[in-house]
Amino acid sequence: MAKIQVAVLGATGMIGQRFVQLLEDHPWFEIGGLYASERSEGKRLGDVLKVKDVQFMQDTLDRKIEQLEPKAIAKRCRVAFSGLPTDVAKDTESALADAGCAVFSNAASHRMRPDVPLLIPEVNPEHLDLIKVQSTYKDGGFIVTNANCSTTGLAVPLKAIYEAYGLDLVCVSTYQAVSGAGYPGVPSLDILGNVVPFIKNEEEKMEEEIHKMLGKKTSKGVKFAEFDMVASCARVPVIDGHTESAAMRLGKDASVEAIVKKLRAFKPAPQKLELPTAPVRPIIVRDEADRPQPLCDVYAGEPARARGMAVTVGRVRQSGKYTKMWVLSHNTIRGGAGGSVINAELAKAKKLL
Amino acid sequence: MAKIQVAVLGATGMIGQRFVQLLEDHPWFEIGGLYASERSEGKRLGDVLKVKDVQFMQDTLDRKIEQLEPKAIAKRCRVAFSGLPTDVAKDTESALADAGCAVFSNAASHRMRPDVPLLIPEVNPEHLDLIKVQSTYKDGGFIVTNANCSTTGLAVPLKAIYEAYGLDLVCVSTYQAVSGAGYPGVPSLDILGNVVPFIKNEEEKMEEEIHKMLGKKTSKGVKFAEFDMVASCARVPVIDGHTESAAMRLGKDASVEAIVKKLRAFKPAPQKLELPTAPVRPIIVRDEADRPQPLCDVYAGEPARARGMAVTVGRVRQSGKYTKMWVLSHNTIRGGAGGSVINAELAKAKKLL
Amino acid sequence: MAKIQVAVLGATGMIGQRFVQLLEDHPWFEIGGLYASERSEGKRLGDVLKVKDVQFMQDTLDRKIEQLEPKAIAKRCRVAFSGLPTDVAKDTESALADAGCAVFSNAASHRMRPDVPLLIPEVNPEHLDLIKVQSTYKDGGFIVTNANCSTTGLAVPLKAIYEAYGLDLVCVSTYQAVSGAGYPGVPSLDILGNVVPFIKNEEEKMEEEIHKMLGKKTSKGVKFAEFDMVASCARVPVIDGHTESAAMRLGKDASVEAIVKKLRAFKPAPQKLELPTAPVRPIIVRDEADRPQPLCDVYAGEPARARGMAVTVGRVRQSGKYTKMWVLSHNTIRGGAGGSVINAELAKAKKLL
Amino acid sequence: MAKIQVAVLGATGMIGQRFVQLLEDHPWFEIGGLYASERSEGKRLGDVLKVKDVQFMQDTLDRKIEQLEPKAIAKRCRVAFSGLPTDVAKDTESALADAGCAVFSNAASHRMRPDVPLLIPEVNPEHLDLIKVQSTYKDGGFIVTNANCSTTGLAVPLKAIYEAYGLDLVCVSTYQAVSGAGYPGVPSLDILGNVVPFIKNEEEKMEEEIHKMLGKKTSKGVKFAEFDMVASCARVPVIDGHTESAAMRLGKDASVEAIVKKLRAFKPAPQKLELPTAPVRPIIVRDEADRPQPLCDVYAGEPARARGMAVTVGRVRQSGKYTKMWVLSHNTIRGGAGGSVINAELAKAKKLL
Repeated sequence: MAKIQVAVLGATGMIGQRFVQLLEDHPWFEIGGLYASERSEGKRLGDVLKVKDVQFMQDTLDRKIEQLEPKAIAKRCRVAFSGLPTDVAKDTESALADAGCAVFSNAASHRMRPDVPLLIPEVNPEHLDLIKVQSTYKDGGFIVTNANCSTTGLAVPLKAIYEAYGLDLVCVSTYQAVSGAGYPGVPSLDILGNVVPFIKNEEEKMEEEIHKMLGKKTSKGVKFAEFDMVASCARVPVIDGHTESAAMRLGKDASVEAIVKKLRAFKPAPQKLELPTAPVRPIIVRDEADRPQPLCDVYAGEPARARGMAVTVGRVRQSGKYTKMWVLSHNTIRGGAGGSVINAELAKAKKLL
Repeated sequence: MAKIQVAVLGATGMIGQRFVQLLEDHPWFEIGGLYASERSEGKRLGDVLKVKDVQFMQDTLDRKIEQLEPKAIAKRCRVAFSGLPTDVAKDTESALADAGCAVFSNAASHRMRPDVPLLIPEVNPEHLDLIKVQSTYKDGGFIVTNANCSTTGLAVPLKAIYEAYGLDLVCVSTYQAVSGAGYPGVPSLDILGNVVPFIKNEEEKMEEEIHKMLGKKTSKGVKFAEFDMVASCARVPVIDGHTESAAMRLGKDASVEAIVKKLRAFKPAPQKLELPTAPVRPIIVRDEADRPQPLCDVYAGEPARARGMAVTVGRVRQSGKYTKMWVLSHNTIRGGAGGSVINAELAKAKKLL
Repeated sequence: MAKIQVAVLGATGMIGQRFVQLLEDHPWFEIGGLYASERSEGKRLGDVLKVKDVQFMQDTLDRKIEQLEPKAIAKRCRVAFSGLPTDVAKDTESALADAGCAVFSNAASHRMRPDVPLLIPEVNPEHLDLIKVQSTYKDGGFIVTNANCSTTGLAVPLKAIYEAYGLDLVCVSTYQAVSGAGYPGVPSLDILGNVVPFIKNEEEKMEEEIHKMLGKKTSKGVKFAEFDMVASCARVPVIDGHTESAAMRLGKDASVEAIVKKLRAFKPAPQKLELPTAPVRPIIVRDEADRPQPLCDVYAGEPARARGMAVTVGRVRQSGKYTKMWVLSHNTIRGGAGGSVINAELAKAKKLL
Repeated sequence: MAKIQVAVLGATGMIGQRFVQLLEDHPWFEIGGLYASERSEGKRLGDVLKVKDVQFMQDTLDRKIEQLEPKAIAKRCRVAFSGLPTDVAKDTESALADAGCAVFSNAASHRMRPDVPLLIPEVNPEHLDLIKVQSTYKDGGFIVTNANCSTTGLAVPLKAIYEAYGLDLVCVSTYQAVSGAGYPGVPSLDILGNVVPFIKNEEEKMEEEIHKMLGKKTSKGVKFAEFDMVASCARVPVIDGHTESAAMRLGKDASVEAIVKKLRAFKPAPQKLELPTAPVRPIIVRDEADRPQPLCDVYAGEPARARGMAVTVGRVRQSGKYTKMWVLSHNTIRGGAGGSVINAELAKAKKLL
């Protein structure tokens, strides 16, 4: 069976290159072209590398960045993975969908549109059907977005808890890696030996997106979930891996043991469908006293193709009526490129591609 | 007027050396002796330096560490500042109090005793009178403790808010500096480019101590304050300065403007009494979008003697019914040695020394 | 006596703000105006702060950045301190000299001109007279440059050694702080937990500048010193402070003791003239086994005004015929703004202002 | 063919665990037992993990640490890989050799003995025959040591240059990772945002070992190579990967192109013999302006089994008569456990096991 041709948009950036990494040897998809802003046209990928911990194949390094022209892309590629910056993403992605392309985007531009799925296959696979409401759907074009990086890591275990016990309050503080700001991103002078307690729009995104994803799909959109969500976001001197401290008030009483059991037993759609990039266990609960940690757990996820796709949870504990836990996920894989790749895999499995 | 002779216990450690720094040229106190475990007896302070960002005077560097013998210390020094490790502190501090010494301790050993003030002069100066209940008080001996480093930074602004509006819930996540673990403390292999979401006993201390300090002094102890306190503690790659993310449910509605005004107007006992180590403004509220930060704010506090004694608050904001803020303080000064020095100053101002 | 009015060029940058810090309360100079590129015109200094570890006075923070118009500046200010980027510096500084202004520059643009002093008062004060060869000198305008940051730290102890023993070979490797690249400068993704063994043009500057500074002033220029200079430059995850490892082959044999004695006894022009920003001891030799270190020694220099102006040397030792030492200096103070401030002080002391 | 049973000594430490990682699935060797000091006897490996970036197999994590009793070990295991601390290593390793065990050690204790090969198969494979001079050899027992971590990375490219051009002088400065100090090793308070220009005995080891390894094997020992070697060693805030700056005076003139060609063409014994842990290319020369870097190159080496075994060289350039280059290698793999594993592979290939 021929592989589906896919375009990578924003291939000179951190997220774009994570797309390339995940697609280099994908069983269903094949990179049809790399695209970025005019400034980078014609450059070799190897000459604009941002991701430092990956050894790309020589052929991949030698690929040239091409002109980002939506119609031309749509002719060559059935799917476009977008790692474009938010300001550029909006119109480009719309143009691609108009041209009949299936767009899987990491950008925030379309996330809160009622007819656009804000999708994590482990959390709300049924939302994917929202694409059928999109005007371009009849011609094969549509937009699916993955969630914000810090929202994603939290949403997966939250889903397992929410469906078992309900939620009244989630209070989360984040310890976010610098790769989340792209490249060049955070100046070293701002973050070496420091904590920066501010990430533009991040708290708003977390507080908003979680309610859409845990909400119910209706005929024309999503009925948002209702619980208090209070987010506080900071940057710390870590390269990859968002760590998050969550305190929750559950909808009904549950012991730590019961909660851990639910988290470990969580087996949602991607695992049932055995999507290529789905980790065998979407949530890994650690027993150690001091985990998860970015250095140890950022690449959690098996088999090899799913490295960085599992969410690690640790220190589930209680303080009076509140349940606390720590959550860690790879922000540019699970919370970025990998999120959209698995979204596309779900679409393919559901015969929408 | 002759200065009061004071002993510094644990002078080879991080907190002990912050005591030395604050006492080198103090208007009321004079270092009578430096003490530490047998292992260090006879060593020059200059040969066991842990604090790297201070230039001590040559005379100070040349002082020798002496044998930690409580009775001998009590003869020479009216006051003992203790930076001893918790396991050693308990008996040594009791012995010193028995011998008639006024002990101001950074150790946790005696903090939760009903007759021991867990004291922050900006928060609960009236608790100091608890020393009169201690059995050794009649002979001049007593123990006063400062609070845990992460509790201290939070307690100061929380006091201002609590007395104005009351509190139903405080949910705090910490970003703690490595100096809080003493020396050698945290191995570099554990923290470089990493977050460690566990500090032994820290969450328990925070959840417990805050209720004692915001509680009411009674004839024989303290009636603890009652509100939900949920703490989650982590270590980050920062040398000095604990950053904390707090989300609160206040007892009654208040606007951000009103809260900031209360924080800025907060003028408790140390400032009224003009204690030498008290900063002119105990709480500094920053208007910038991205403050406080350790690199910028850890040494907040004026005049020069009060550097590192002010607590910096930033990003006071609301999310639904919840008020959020970031808090930063110097963990080994405001939350350690400086805390006990200002406690002793309060005792002196109240003629208890 | 009225203070000399001085302009600070490039006041929104790292070096510019170090100028402001050093000039805030200077006994001879007074800030007449802050200047930067058009983009920053009209902004408050407090709103574009880069330097994080300094508490500027409120008046300073409230100063506005003004338009960089050479003629207007020259009317108001006798002296211009330039922290401009190299590409802008060349023409602007020339225009200021044409307009009669005494320019003290941190930029590289004019450093190697035969008629421009590349000046470190501790190293080659007699080179200052080169300004008299400059065509604008008769109207009071001239340009004096300080050396590259990594060259400066090395040049001071090298001078003491060169004049005592001569030099055949200096082989230096640098461990340079990120502040040397300005702001935003080095992306955190490139340097967290990493070493970057490349700094553009840095090795060339070091190999070239040292020969000019240790050379002999002639009537129209400088006869360069002749010895082998081999430099290798790298960036490390340090905020401030360039550490350098030097191995030297001296012109004649000397014991470690003799060399250390020469370094400690070094008392050049700035110390003899008691220039305001000159540290009492220009070279501090540490006896400890593991110094100098950025965290301990970057702010070496007494009195308070000279903090960060001393060069710290440590571990002077020999390996066969080679003498090794470690050198540390503050790259944006001693090796940047402070270098030009002390240059201007020398000019003033020599009645050239 | 049955695999050779091997013991791992010091299995609770950083080097010991790198041995375990490399031996988990080795084609020739099989872990027969894990050994460490009494303190750790009976503990699960999974409970004393130091290496954070490896996912060990569950069986491996569940292995227990056993008592380090040389005779018992020798009965079970033909080979012992030693990651013991130097002070313990000396006697234990001798006892193992006495008991007939082939010891491959990372410890420094026996390195400079005339009858002990200080071995890097890429550099001096013929030195391995020195074991035949050891008194225990007739009974099958002997000791082979790998070189110091920082010496190893340098020795490989130096060998290629030395055999082609000769060497008069090598001047090296190191940027060493904290993992080189073991665990807990370097306190975070000493290295966060800092450089520590001192590593005990490291410069002496580098200056001495290189001459032994590049020396000629004689009937009873080694005739040391003769050239000037000047080393200066520092610790930097990097987890894994020693970066080194080398300046050389070659024995005869050579262009950069010629030198790079020699480095790339270098194909020593391990590659000819296709030893399992030998990388296809022992030296990788990068063309980029800013490589090697720890974050990019520390795991250089193909195929998968040889990850971290290649040495990366970059920025080969000249300054007058001197040739400069940057070198990077993984200090606990190439310069530690991997060094001894490949030594044992060479011994096996030469039928000495």
